Amino acid sequence: MDMWYTEKHSENVGITMKVSRTLFSGKSDFQQLDILETLEYGRMMLLDGLVMVTERDEFVYHDMITHPALFTHPDPKKVLVIGGGDGGTIREIMKHKNVELAVLCEIDGLVIDKSIELLPSMSCEIDGSNPRVKLHVDDGIAYIKAHQGEFDIILVDSTDPIGPAEGLFEEDFYRTVFAALKDDGIMVAQSESPFYHAEIQKNMYGNLRSVFPIVEMYQAFIPTYPSGLWSFAFASKKYHPVRDFDRERARGRDFHTRYYNEDLHLGAFMLPTFARENIEG
Amino acid sequence: MDMWYTEKHSENVGITMKVSRTLFSGKSDFQQLDILETLEYGRMMLLDGLVMVTERDEFVYHDMITHPALFTHPDPKKVLVIGGGDGGTIREIMKHKNVELAVLCEIDGLVIDKSIELLPSMSCEIDGSNPRVKLHVDDGIAYIKAHQGEFDIILVDSTDPIGPAEGLFEEDFYRTVFAALKDDGIMVAQSESPFYHAEIQKNMYGNLRSVFPIVEMYQAFIPTYPSGLWSFAFASKKYHPVRDFDRERARGRDFHTRYYNEDLHLGAFMLPTFARENIEG
Repeated sequence: MDMWYTEKHSENVGITMKVSRTLFSGKSDFQQLDILETLEYGRMMLLDGLVMVTERDEFVYHDMITHPALFTHPDPKKVLVIGGGDGGTIREIMKHKNVELAVLCEIDGLVIDKSIELLPSMSCEIDGSNPRVKLHVDDGIAYIKAHQGEFDIILVDSTDPIGPAEGLFEEDFYRTVFAALKDDGIMVAQSESPFYHAEIQKNMYGNLRSVFPIVEMYQAFIPTYPSGLWSFAFASKKYHPVRDFDRERARGRDFHTRYYNEDLHLGAFMLPTFARENIEG
Repeated sequence: MDMWYTEKHSENVGITMKVSRTLFSGKSDFQQLDILETLEYGRMMLLDGLVMVTERDEFVYHDMITHPALFTHPDPKKVLVIGGGDGGTIREIMKHKNVELAVLCEIDGLVIDKSIELLPSMSCEIDGSNPRVKLHVDDGIAYIKAHQGEFDIILVDSTDPIGPAEGLFEEDFYRTVFAALKDDGIMVAQSESPFYHAEIQKNMYGNLRSVFPIVEMYQAFIPTYPSGLWSFAFASKKYHPVRDFDRERARGRDFHTRYYNEDLHLGAFMLPTFARENIEG
């Protein structure tokens, strides 16, 4: 029997992948979680039927949500991840030896449990083995309200702005994040596809600009995400991701990155015209 | 009835698009040609079942095969396109007023005829209306052998290295192109997906480096191509696409480009690590 999983990126287009088996399928208090074994992309996690991560291309997303902020900030010691229950973002943060503590605040404990069980290459640093990592199964908004002025960097590793993550795209939330950051803090959040989600981007970047003095968009190629062109919002109190970037420090990193590098860091902020236009004032 | 077209990018993954009707389906002497009306991407041209262009995302490919070379060369007057029978590359070249003559050499006359009939937004400059454009329905290799030292720029707008375009990825062909270029000439060729076609890239860039003193890869996002991450080879006798690029001239262009811009020109050459590694000596 040939089994194919198709994710529609709109009513009229989608990606389709051959699947050998279902490793887990169940419903948490928040969402439907499925983990499938695909032939092309390895294991793949879906939330409410949408591809979150696959073993083959997760390196792009996790490199790019993490390293631009951690190489722009001159000395990040305390980092918070909101969402990101698969653990891939924490794994990348842990490669930065100057980070003393990384906190994962994921609303859905089932995502963490099943990632530890079935996605070990991503969850290797959230399985309890690393004393520099703390886990909180909690609502991200409630958590940051209780931790003001604490973090150097906050990474919002969320799902799309429908369902549990809806509130993570609103101005009120960004004000709360701003308050939870130190005076020179940086927030990065995934910000959808410039090709398919122009309207979401316009609203999101408008909201961010009401709160942060520095707001820039950067891009990455993620084959299993709609259109393959994905984006991240870099919102910062003090450091600019291009002007304040220390290319030599990034170049001298003591770990290998399959997507990120010190030149790509700069190139990622050089956007196609249509993407720039999505977020113009 | 719901009709979907699925292109497999490998045995195990593909893109699927809803189709409202078939506008043309037929076989030329060289290949199968289909033009479909899709709901998400507008009209779409397939050769031997592979997506060549769609109305919605062709601007990316045509901007990026054309403008990096035409804004690196200080004064391109004579440009040759091999392949590219849809006309989109010629349309972009014509935006450069300093170009005196653009020659299209396409092996398959049916592609030209059907593009003129069914894809007018791309073929608008190859329909006989522009005296700066000449068409040759001919084998590209034979054509350039007969035109030595003539061109400032040659753009190889080919299909994949299987079928009619196979010879366009070989060292012998690049030697012929080298000879058809003037002493400061530039060649650009589409060079497949760094994500799926590492082996093809390794061979192709190895072949190019045996012939040209300057060989660089650059990238673009093309949603309907395998993985969404596509690449182009910039092979040059004299001008380097980054070091010799006149950002101010590109910035001062008198036409709008939805993908290309003077910053993206530079960013396109800042590659993900895995893509760099594909073509390392």
